[in-house]
Amino acid sequence: MPIVQFTPFSSLVQPSLWHKLTDLKIDVLKLSDAAVPISGSYSTGRTIKDRETGQEIALPCNLTVGSESFEEGHKPPHGAVAAIGTLKNYNTIEEFKAADKTALFNQEAQAIWDHIIATRSTEQLNRFLLITFADLKKYKYYYWFAFPAFVSKPAWEIGEEGWREASEELDTTQLSSIHTQLRAQANSLPYFLLRKEKSGEIAFAPVEAYETFYASVAPEEQIIGFVDPSADPTNPGWPLRNLLAYLRALYPNTTSKLRVLRWRNSEIPHTPNTLWKSQIGVLHVSGEVTDATARPSAVGWEKNPHGKLGPRVADLAPMMDPTRLAAQAVDLNLKLMRWRILPSLDLDKISSTKCLLLGAGTLGCYVARALMGWGVRTITLVDSGKVSFSNPVRQPLFEFADCLDGGKPKAECAAEALKRIFPGINATGHTLAIPMPGHPIPPGAASIAQAKADVAKLEQLIDEHDAVFLLMDSRESRWLPTVIGAAKGKIVLNAALGFDTFLVMRHGARASSLSTGKDGKPHQRLGCYYCNDIVAPADSLTDRTLDQMCTVTRPGLAPTAAATAVELLSSLVQHPDGVFAPPPPPNTNSSNSDPEEGVNSVLGQVPHQLRGFLNQFKTMPLVGAGYDKCTGCSETVLKAYETEGFSMLLQAFNDAKYLETLTGLDKLYDEGDALLENVDWHEEGEDEDDF
Amino acid sequence: MPIVQFTPFSSLVQPSLWHKLTDLKIDVLKLSDAAVPISGSYSTGRTIKDRETGQEIALPCNLTVGSESFEEGHKPPHGAVAAIGTLKNYNTIEEFKAADKTALFNQEAQAIWDHIIATRSTEQLNRFLLITFADLKKYKYYYWFAFPAFVSKPAWEIGEEGWREASEELDTTQLSSIHTQLRAQANSLPYFLLRKEKSGEIAFAPVEAYETFYASVAPEEQIIGFVDPSADPTNPGWPLRNLLAYLRALYPNTTSKLRVLRWRNSEIPHTPNTLWKSQIGVLHVSGEVTDATARPSAVGWEKNPHGKLGPRVADLAPMMDPTRLAAQAVDLNLKLMRWRILPSLDLDKISSTKCLLLGAGTLGCYVARALMGWGVRTITLVDSGKVSFSNPVRQPLFEFADCLDGGKPKAECAAEALKRIFPGINATGHTLAIPMPGHPIPPGAASIAQAKADVAKLEQLIDEHDAVFLLMDSRESRWLPTVIGAAKGKIVLNAALGFDTFLVMRHGARASSLSTGKDGKPHQRLGCYYCNDIVAPADSLTDRTLDQMCTVTRPGLAPTAAATAVELLSSLVQHPDGVFAPPPPPNTNSSNSDPEEGVNSVLGQVPHQLRGFLNQFKTMPLVGAGYDKCTGCSETVLKAYETEGFSMLLQAFNDAKYLETLTGLDKLYDEGDALLENVDWHEEGEDEDDF
Repeated sequence: MPIVQFTPFSSLVQPSLWHKLTDLKIDVLKLSDAAVPISGSYSTGRTIKDRETGQEIALPCNLTVGSESFEEGHKPPHGAVAAIGTLKNYNTIEEFKAADKTALFNQEAQAIWDHIIATRSTEQLNRFLLITFADLKKYKYYYWFAFPAFVSKPAWEIGEEGWREASEELDTTQLSSIHTQLRAQANSLPYFLLRKEKSGEIAFAPVEAYETFYASVAPEEQIIGFVDPSADPTNPGWPLRNLLAYLRALYPNTTSKLRVLRWRNSEIPHTPNTLWKSQIGVLHVSGEVTDATARPSAVGWEKNPHGKLGPRVADLAPMMDPTRLAAQAVDLNLKLMRWRILPSLDLDKISSTKCLLLGAGTLGCYVARALMGWGVRTITLVDSGKVSFSNPVRQPLFEFADCLDGGKPKAECAAEALKRIFPGINATGHTLAIPMPGHPIPPGAASIAQAKADVAKLEQLIDEHDAVFLLMDSRESRWLPTVIGAAKGKIVLNAALGFDTFLVMRHGARASSLSTGKDGKPHQRLGCYYCNDIVAPADSLTDRTLDQMCTVTRPGLAPTAAATAVELLSSLVQHPDGVFAPPPPPNTNSSNSDPEEGVNSVLGQVPHQLRGFLNQFKTMPLVGAGYDKCTGCSETVLKAYETEGFSMLLQAFNDAKYLETLTGLDKLYDEGDALLENVDWHEEGEDEDDF
Repeated sequence: MPIVQFTPFSSLVQPSLWHKLTDLKIDVLKLSDAAVPISGSYSTGRTIKDRETGQEIALPCNLTVGSESFEEGHKPPHGAVAAIGTLKNYNTIEEFKAADKTALFNQEAQAIWDHIIATRSTEQLNRFLLITFADLKKYKYYYWFAFPAFVSKPAWEIGEEGWREASEELDTTQLSSIHTQLRAQANSLPYFLLRKEKSGEIAFAPVEAYETFYASVAPEEQIIGFVDPSADPTNPGWPLRNLLAYLRALYPNTTSKLRVLRWRNSEIPHTPNTLWKSQIGVLHVSGEVTDATARPSAVGWEKNPHGKLGPRVADLAPMMDPTRLAAQAVDLNLKLMRWRILPSLDLDKISSTKCLLLGAGTLGCYVARALMGWGVRTITLVDSGKVSFSNPVRQPLFEFADCLDGGKPKAECAAEALKRIFPGINATGHTLAIPMPGHPIPPGAASIAQAKADVAKLEQLIDEHDAVFLLMDSRESRWLPTVIGAAKGKIVLNAALGFDTFLVMRHGARASSLSTGKDGKPHQRLGCYYCNDIVAPADSLTDRTLDQMCTVTRPGLAPTAAATAVELLSSLVQHPDGVFAPPPPPNTNSSNSDPEEGVNSVLGQVPHQLRGFLNQFKTMPLVGAGYDKCTGCSETVLKAYETEGFSMLLQAFNDAKYLETLTGLDKLYDEGDALLENVDWHEEGEDEDDF
């Protein structure tokens, strides 16, 4: 009698599985390579008709997995049966290659066997293993399935008649009845028992009911059924192997000859003439079972497309939208920080911070780039200038071509560059001149209306963002956004350059009833850019010589200051107190800055001011308290702005003494008591277009 | 009798004057606005024939200045006469506008007058003034000429006959004689005296010879000649005004009636029929000269093209080659550093340093940008990878489009970007894998030949450059360039990133007979990247998990480290001892780092190593001595490389223990005496393509 050959499972992996695995790896598994339970499913085998020969060709015996494979308790689609599995994802390709495949396989086979013996249940008979390595940078997935199946020794044989059409033995009513009863199960059964009643009816039971269901039934009336994923006319599918092993192990005395139904009808044929596709055969096995509980050997590693035992590769990159690939790649690089180094880092807090950059020069370009590195999705730039020939070598969002024909507007040009770098970014540029104290608005309705519109535009932009970066080229242009930013409670970051020195600071937040620390004590009000001044900001632009107008700074200064400003923001937003985060106490070093103290964020210290000195490669933290006569952030100024709006601002622009009188600085000045040092930082200077 | 009207000078400024002024301003004048002597020239006035009417139209009475105007002792072209002038260039447009023009003008007029009275010379009669403001960022030049001319009161009148053709009074032989005698002068004379001899010959003398030359000559035989830039038939040119003033001041008694020759013949007419263009007229002035030495009033500010008294503007930008504009703009920004802040800065030392960047990832891109900011003209990048989707947001020379279709080669792509940013740069990219210890060369002639070729290529590249930056993603890939760089005595700069920490260092230079400091003591041999190691570099790339493979760093880290590395180079090349510059002593602060000591460069300190800690916004300088068992720079290793060449390197690549045995590190290791701490820096990781 011919030996029964079985058609092995052929894995069918939906790309959605890899996307889901990617998310799981990045967000949950991280460095873990622990086994993850998954599920798959298979249906009755299908054929297609060869167009030329008209012959029916069997499709592969697919076991399908997809994104749903990771869902706990997922039910397979109607008519399909579930297979449970285990996914083991390795961290490196070397580990994937070096994994002890024999041990892994035997472990799975043993688990199936132990389950049979211990529980007499069929539920793990289709258990499978999937080992993977996910190269998330390239969207390449290396994988290898194993479908452990026990080997019967001696082999099963099939009777001379071979596999016959089930309809030769069972009539349409009986076959329809099997179909109906199979479909009635809560969970689709991969295996089932049938019993031909005297009445001609077909009784149906799960395989676990073998002993009672067949208690006094003649072998000719017994039919062992299984949902057969194989459409091959002679070779039944892989699930039959473990079903036979199960029956031999548990009922060795009654199972040396079995009538087996290869159930292949997911639907009842529509017309009487259509053949039922299921088959029946009688299988025999010779010899005695000496030790029914001894695990037979098992086989079942899937072959690769070359027919060799080896892993397969799914390369998803060519299938993916490049823009999405870029977005995922950027996301991945950030999320990797949380795997090992900073599990508590809240990336969303950074990436969702909407950033307004006032100034699209050297500092603005470098700040935008560093923000993009942190995954910040909304970056808006404001500048009034055009790209000039000296810009591109120092301002890393511009090229030579941007300088031609008089130069593109800097803010818009920088925003375009950001989109060219990363299409997923929401970048906008606005050409806008920021009105300044000491630069009177020319008399006349038109120019006042223009100033009013400029102020309104700036107010709107600040409203729409969470953090405002002051990256302009003069001291006085920082005044208006300082006032508006403070009044609206925004994060305000400030960077200014000298020749080889820089200042980076965060403006202190306005006190509010919420502004108490964890210890319940009110937060110290930190100073702003103007808090150390004893004069109001005034015109520092007119009458500048060329070296004062241009950015005369060491080229390494701006990238350092810009990166410092962005990292100060990233540390700030990670701090539980946010904008109220206390600066580290003076002379804090790493050993006594316990994050438990509440001083540090997960990224470390959140200083108030940093002054960098390139001639010594040194950066010094400083803390400056808010000043109650400050022309930028004192309550007097903020309340006057909030009460009077544009008319107050207009006075500040036009009247050199207004702010000093308002704050009382003039009295201090009159007393000639210059207690505070007025450090005159040489500002970064971009193009001046005021002549 | 009609009053004589004079045609004023019309300035003709060659663009070359502005280019020359630009250079002068940037390199010499800097912030000085002291008067600079210049010269101009004018020729005899010319006419053109109106195409429609056939009438002769007088061209403007040009005084021409150009780049030659700044040359001391410059002689005007043949037939033209020189005018001397003064250029005063203001630092700001405000100063230019606010300049006291009346005072300036009177000062010039007084100088002319004083010269007449004191020296009786005519050489300053055509003296002119040019005030300017050069907006070098925009190539816009604001300027205003003054040609001071004395006003005669009462005015000169011309006889009824007016200006007659000179040929009516002088025959061709006489006119030709004047032409020849004028041309024979060593310096073209603007004015001259003629005397009609009885013989019919024409005697010729400079104006200064007035008294003797005309001692006993009848007024009818006297002719006062001047080279007339005016071609107007009735109005003689401006130079006549001061000539008349000169004569009235010095010879008041004999000059109330003068026969004046407007000399306009730069060439002798070719044909007898052609008219001589010169004219003769008899000028009269009435009244007595009461005080001949009293300076008359003067006029002469040039009108602008609108016919108003006001400055003119030359906008050169549209005329210039944009590439040249860019080169000059970049140059300007750097040279401005020397105006006020660092006059002794040697920019050429930086810009001429040829830089080789090994690694075109995050660090490589930022280093290239900062070098470009310093004006470095030769930047060569080496990388073996391709641009991947996660790169552009962190690697500032790449864009999304560079990632498509598998990604462009990084080194070449980065070099192309540098050229797009600044066309004047000499940027090249090379795709090259650097062989590494611990990564054995696969056996076989082909792979060994490839490794040999790769080594030869790297050796050649290092030979061709002055400074080598190690900006790769692994510890061991830095070994080969460390050895070659040390052997060839190159500047080697190294930057490596952790998550929020960086290391930037310069490798110590190999001791040589030249390597003694100013004090004659030998320089301390500073360490290299490997000097702290007690094991040889080995494979750290295989078996890395995703977070170890990718650049898991705070985005602000790379720009800071890259800028630090470039500024370390800029400080180093400014130091008189260059690569042997001593690091600042420990705990040096600004107050005791006297540049006279020889420790600092003009840019400040030249540390050996800098370790940055972003979690504290802190950078710490460190000094590490060279280690005589170092696998990277010890004499043992360098001599083995120099003696055995590639075969020594091949052993190092293939045999994990070779370097430890060679240096004796193995013995140290055997003793189990780990005296030195082996700090394991987490390297920046770019894409790994080794699977």
